[in-house]
Amino acid sequence: MTTDTMPDLMISTLPNSSESRSIAVTLQNDPTLSRSYEIVIAAHSLPHLGTKLRDLGLGKKSQKVLIVSNPVIFKHYGDAVQTSLQDSGFEVAKVILPAGERYKTAKSLQSIYDAALAHRMERSSLMVALGGGVVGDMTGYAAATWLRGIELVQVPTTLLAMVDSAIGGKTGINHPQGKNLIGAFYQPRLVWIDPTVLRTLPARELRAAMAEVIKYGVIWDRDLFSKLLDSPRLDQLRYIKPELLDTILYACAKAKAEVVSKDEKEGNLRAILNYGHTIGHAVEMVTNYRTFNHGEAVGIGMVAAGAIAVELKLWTQAEHEQQLSLIAKARLPQSLPTDIDLEQIIVALSLDKKVSAGKIQFILPTAIGTVKVTDQVSSEVVRKVLRQILTQ
Amino acid sequence: MTTDTMPDLMISTLPNSSESRSIAVTLQNDPTLSRSYEIVIAAHSLPHLGTKLRDLGLGKKSQKVLIVSNPVIFKHYGDAVQTSLQDSGFEVAKVILPAGERYKTAKSLQSIYDAALAHRMERSSLMVALGGGVVGDMTGYAAATWLRGIELVQVPTTLLAMVDSAIGGKTGINHPQGKNLIGAFYQPRLVWIDPTVLRTLPARELRAAMAEVIKYGVIWDRDLFSKLLDSPRLDQLRYIKPELLDTILYACAKAKAEVVSKDEKEGNLRAILNYGHTIGHAVEMVTNYRTFNHGEAVGIGMVAAGAIAVELKLWTQAEHEQQLSLIAKARLPQSLPTDIDLEQIIVALSLDKKVSAGKIQFILPTAIGTVKVTDQVSSEVVRKVLRQILTQ
Repeated sequence: MTTDTMPDLMISTLPNSSESRSIAVTLQNDPTLSRSYEIVIAAHSLPHLGTKLRDLGLGKKSQKVLIVSNPVIFKHYGDAVQTSLQDSGFEVAKVILPAGERYKTAKSLQSIYDAALAHRMERSSLMVALGGGVVGDMTGYAAATWLRGIELVQVPTTLLAMVDSAIGGKTGINHPQGKNLIGAFYQPRLVWIDPTVLRTLPARELRAAMAEVIKYGVIWDRDLFSKLLDSPRLDQLRYIKPELLDTILYACAKAKAEVVSKDEKEGNLRAILNYGHTIGHAVEMVTNYRTFNHGEAVGIGMVAAGAIAVELKLWTQAEHEQQLSLIAKARLPQSLPTDIDLEQIIVALSLDKKVSAGKIQFILPTAIGTVKVTDQVSSEVVRKVLRQILTQ
Repeated sequence: MTTDTMPDLMISTLPNSSESRSIAVTLQNDPTLSRSYEIVIAAHSLPHLGTKLRDLGLGKKSQKVLIVSNPVIFKHYGDAVQTSLQDSGFEVAKVILPAGERYKTAKSLQSIYDAALAHRMERSSLMVALGGGVVGDMTGYAAATWLRGIELVQVPTTLLAMVDSAIGGKTGINHPQGKNLIGAFYQPRLVWIDPTVLRTLPARELRAAMAEVIKYGVIWDRDLFSKLLDSPRLDQLRYIKPELLDTILYACAKAKAEVVSKDEKEGNLRAILNYGHTIGHAVEMVTNYRTFNHGEAVGIGMVAAGAIAVELKLWTQAEHEQQLSLIAKARLPQSLPTDIDLEQIIVALSLDKKVSAGKIQFILPTAIGTVKVTDQVSSEVVRKVLRQILTQ
């Protein structure tokens, strides 16, 4: 975190697309031109990806592209992307990996490397991640490490990837004994978001992603928060007006880009993105990653963090209740199963990656749009809140 | 390559060490403080490594160190390093990998990850590479990718690693079908060179490294070149005076650091480090990596590149003969087996990683200390030189 400058924001339009917005991300830790990139949000934009890549100067030295995807996503959107790239003169190969977090492994990574080798990819060749967080993380890591780094474009197809994982440069795979233990910070050349692909997203995944959307409202963007409050429901795509979806995508991408631009490698600021994640991770762990998905656990974590902030008199009860109402609109769980052992959660908290010198780091809201990072939360307060809030 | 500024050079001394020299490397592509590092060359300095790491501020947050080495090197020098680190309060674990290029694999890498997990390494924990190029490349890559990047110190124990592979940030492992296909650019916090460890280096490895030493003379450092000429022999450590060894280590590390500082990721300048490597790689490939080791092949490549430069009237015959005399002093081969098929070398050249648009890139000397990069060498000239020079 070196300066307070915001990244430039640009609005641009795409041919044949009703509207599009574009956010320029410049990483301030590494302000070389090659490391700044654009996030484009535009409905019906998949068929224009090839043209955009040419505009960016990709394909001048190597025409080779490797699309990485999963079977369901590729069935829906593979043709559109592949045709667009071929029409722009790229030589396209693909590798389709099994879907799901449990395939984010060294073995899947090896499949990407093998495909890159078979396609004779060069340093100026391109990998395109077409899918959700798992595809994006693995493709990003493969691009970071093949020939010590080749070109990368993210085409996120889930709401969670659009608002979170595709932006920020965190890439990696899981180790058999832990998530994301192996990875690299590696920025794409472009993030290309076509919101129309969300029509095939399962409702539970949409709701889970909404937890992260609400998070951006609480930690960074008061205006987003109040627009979410205006929507009667947030649990299915059909209840979310197009203008609101547009606002969500733009505001979240912008928030993440702003935070990451100023702090690429988790110095200080980036920690605020973990709002709701401290207790959320502990809940996931204690329930063996089965009861809740990640977004649901983060929702519970935000309920708990909000309550802790209220308990410590950092936050008003009124704003905390606004947050609760958003979580309810997204139909996210707000409590834990009654048979859960709260002491297990306390133990799990002490194993968190971000524990430093035995102190657990919490991100706590102080006002809508503003949070503080603190390790001054006693385990008594955590216990009290978990007891009050989570098993009611 | 953004500016012409040289990295700062500093001379420092170490306690109980007769003499030491230190080179500060600042990468100009990424001038954040965290990315600049020091190369220290000091006899009998292994026992002082722990103190130096403390001086650098390492171990403030995490005391954990993982030493990566191979059986022979660890037998000779493991105790000295381990004791030094423990005396400075570090918690030391080690992982000993089998020696040799054929073990630079995903499997060995997994062993490092597993050891890091077992030792519960954190983001501020440290990996120490104690060994030659294979250990350094793998440890560097593991450090680059464990938890998306932890601290790294290189303690090179071969002449080749000291003058070349430990400096510059290239890390990686081999893919079953190609060398160094998987990797990352990742800079250490410190390169710690104790020349006294060279006493256990096999003579053939010393000679092979001497090819790279001669390379630095030709491409960058006229003074080094002339000091090498003054030495009657360069093929065994006992013939190389301590002052000359000191000059070699300092000049080569400085040359590599200067080149890399100005061009971390192989834009333009860094290409000159490939002098002798174009034909060298082709020779290695055609002889199935069995007849010659890497340094020997580079020596042959320099003989060929020098002859091509003379043929194209870029270089004088007199200077080319000076280069030949250095290669002879190092007892490096200057010709190929008579039964080799030169056309196979021509084919292998066309498969080189650095081929761009079908043109082969050559680094050719124009004067001692100066080279030019060109893709304007016809295959007729290459054939003629190979025929004249290499099978005589």
